[in-house]
Amino acid sequence: MARRSPGRAATPRGRSQDERAGASVERSGADRSSARRSRAGGSRSAGERSAGSAPRGREWQSIEVLRGLLATASTSHARTRPLLGIGDDAAILAAPRGPTLVWTIDGSVEGVHFRRDWLSLQDVGWRATHAAVSDVAAMGARPVAALCHLVLPSTLTAAELKQLGRGQAAAAQELACPVIGGNVSSGPRLELATTVLGEVPPRRVALTRGGARPGDELWLLGDVGLAAAGQRALQAGVSLRGLGACVAAWRRPHARVTDGLALQGRATACIDVSDGLVGDAGHLARASGVALVLEQERLGPVLVALAGAARRLGRSALELALWGGEDYALLATGPTSRRPAEARPIGKVEAGAGVWLETD
Amino acid sequence: MARRSPGRAATPRGRSQDERAGASVERSGADRSSARRSRAGGSRSAGERSAGSAPRGREWQSIEVLRGLLATASTSHARTRPLLGIGDDAAILAAPRGPTLVWTIDGSVEGVHFRRDWLSLQDVGWRATHAAVSDVAAMGARPVAALCHLVLPSTLTAAELKQLGRGQAAAAQELACPVIGGNVSSGPRLELATTVLGEVPPRRVALTRGGARPGDELWLLGDVGLAAAGQRALQAGVSLRGLGACVAAWRRPHARVTDGLALQGRATACIDVSDGLVGDAGHLARASGVALVLEQERLGPVLVALAGAARRLGRSALELALWGGEDYALLATGPTSRRPAEARPIGKVEAGAGVWLETD
Repeated sequence: MARRSPGRAATPRGRSQDERAGASVERSGADRSSARRSRAGGSRSAGERSAGSAPRGREWQSIEVLRGLLATASTSHARTRPLLGIGDDAAILAAPRGPTLVWTIDGSVEGVHFRRDWLSLQDVGWRATHAAVSDVAAMGARPVAALCHLVLPSTLTAAELKQLGRGQAAAAQELACPVIGGNVSSGPRLELATTVLGEVPPRRVALTRGGARPGDELWLLGDVGLAAAGQRALQAGVSLRGLGACVAAWRRPHARVTDGLALQGRATACIDVSDGLVGDAGHLARASGVALVLEQERLGPVLVALAGAARRLGRSALELALWGGEDYALLATGPTSRRPAEARPIGKVEAGAGVWLETD
Repeated sequence: MARRSPGRAATPRGRSQDERAGASVERSGADRSSARRSRAGGSRSAGERSAGSAPRGREWQSIEVLRGLLATASTSHARTRPLLGIGDDAAILAAPRGPTLVWTIDGSVEGVHFRRDWLSLQDVGWRATHAAVSDVAAMGARPVAALCHLVLPSTLTAAELKQLGRGQAAAAQELACPVIGGNVSSGPRLELATTVLGEVPPRRVALTRGGARPGDELWLLGDVGLAAAGQRALQAGVSLRGLGACVAAWRRPHARVTDGLALQGRATACIDVSDGLVGDAGHLARASGVALVLEQERLGPVLVALAGAARRLGRSALELALWGGEDYALLATGPTSRRPAEARPIGKVEAGAGVWLETD
């Protein structure tokens, strides 16, 4: 009998450290307070909460406060106009005859998003750049360029700054996203705020979180859970033997620009998985007004890939897959007939609300 | 006899807290190490340093390190292309048929750029937004929209966050620059990184720092020295009686978007005065490969406006005018015949290098 439960295998993932507004909103930990459900035993009403349907926490409240104040505050006199503001991975802008642009900002704060004993400075620069570009990839756009605001502690040497810059430059090279400017401040902790502009291909529109339709498949492009396993291994201080791929996934993620472009003309909605599959699926479900059903059977290969790391860390592979973030995979929806080769089907879109796990 | 000296009335302004790369570079304190010069008594060779010609300090070195690493690191595959990268107030981008865009990022860090006992949270939001938009104004562009990355300390209440958002919203309203998205993180100190896109009017080009020509006039649009007087009054803890205008100038600066647009078709170069007249004139002189001569006589009305505050603070009005930053005036160059009504002539452009003060 197929059973469905909202994040049934999950344990609390910890407080979300980062919450996006506007260009990228709703990345908080999902609500796991609801009772277990199964398709046979329980009725599922639209009003009931399920995993991923209601982001929580202080950052989420902060965004709601700001959204209310900022959303209707002003209108530009420029010809380039916002088409989409607060509520997706990136804002969307268009000029009368220019290309459609997507635009995001992402922050990386020492002691909050990273620790320097877990990452080299090259890793820090790389990660910050890929994390920001991932928002552009999730909109089905290609990066145009980036700017970076750096806060540098006085203890950082010129050689260390070079390492940071080399990480940014290597990421910029891989992503074809030149860093064309920025700003440097002094401050007690190392911080990067990276803003990226992207361009939607001609005759295409930006992919948003809001287009999923009942009947669509749910697609995963990339890995989930590996980066979380790597981070937890570093956190736990366990030997990293056999966990190299996980640690590398966390230290050197890859924004999936090519995959995002491959979704153009095929996907109905898309989001990048930075907070975990359930959390980000919840944002997509909410924005689209649908239910997303994760099928455990179809997650099989994902779980197999996580099995060894899960054992080493004393966690379940399913937990890592459902709640582990920062792999920057893409989660998309679309009709089966239009599924691109890069996409692995892991579930389906139904009428309703929330994120559901269908077990065998 | 007209005498010229590089920043002769100046005292050290203190270490620059903020240094811009790329979108906005070279805002460090100017070099004041050179000897006094006068037009009659000393020869001025191109190789000699003068005030404002060589930004210094750690931030400046940081930018040079990053510029070398990032400038040639990659090329975008998008149609929207960077026309100007590291080295001006903002980067410049253009698509084949789209409008020319300018793009900047600016940071505001508690304990570095502001103290919360000197500013209300509304002021903090207002200042951060105006400071970022000022870079767009200096390029002769109108703002399109902004994104903001916020780092919020856990002690910040929802009511306090609302105050911050209200300051941003009020600035957005005044500037016709909607804040359409962003990102929220937790962290120990309040920080804002604001990125702004601007659009150059049709059939115009962005104003840069690099177009000043010998024979041009030097123009000032807006006040200088008032904000520095206000900040120093707060810093010194003196009574603010009679200093209200100065404190307001520091707490609530105004990006001069209308003035920037008025310079279109008239100015040959432009920069915003965030680090002080001598410092920013130095950046413009260097980018243009010219000497800028400030004429003390023409600064008369500026100095009169600063006289009262200077007395109260035990400083000279000339010092405040030359070295006080954060008023966000615009400093531009252009032919006398094309000087807009908003511009006050304060000097001239000559062949050579550096910034010079011509006394009566």
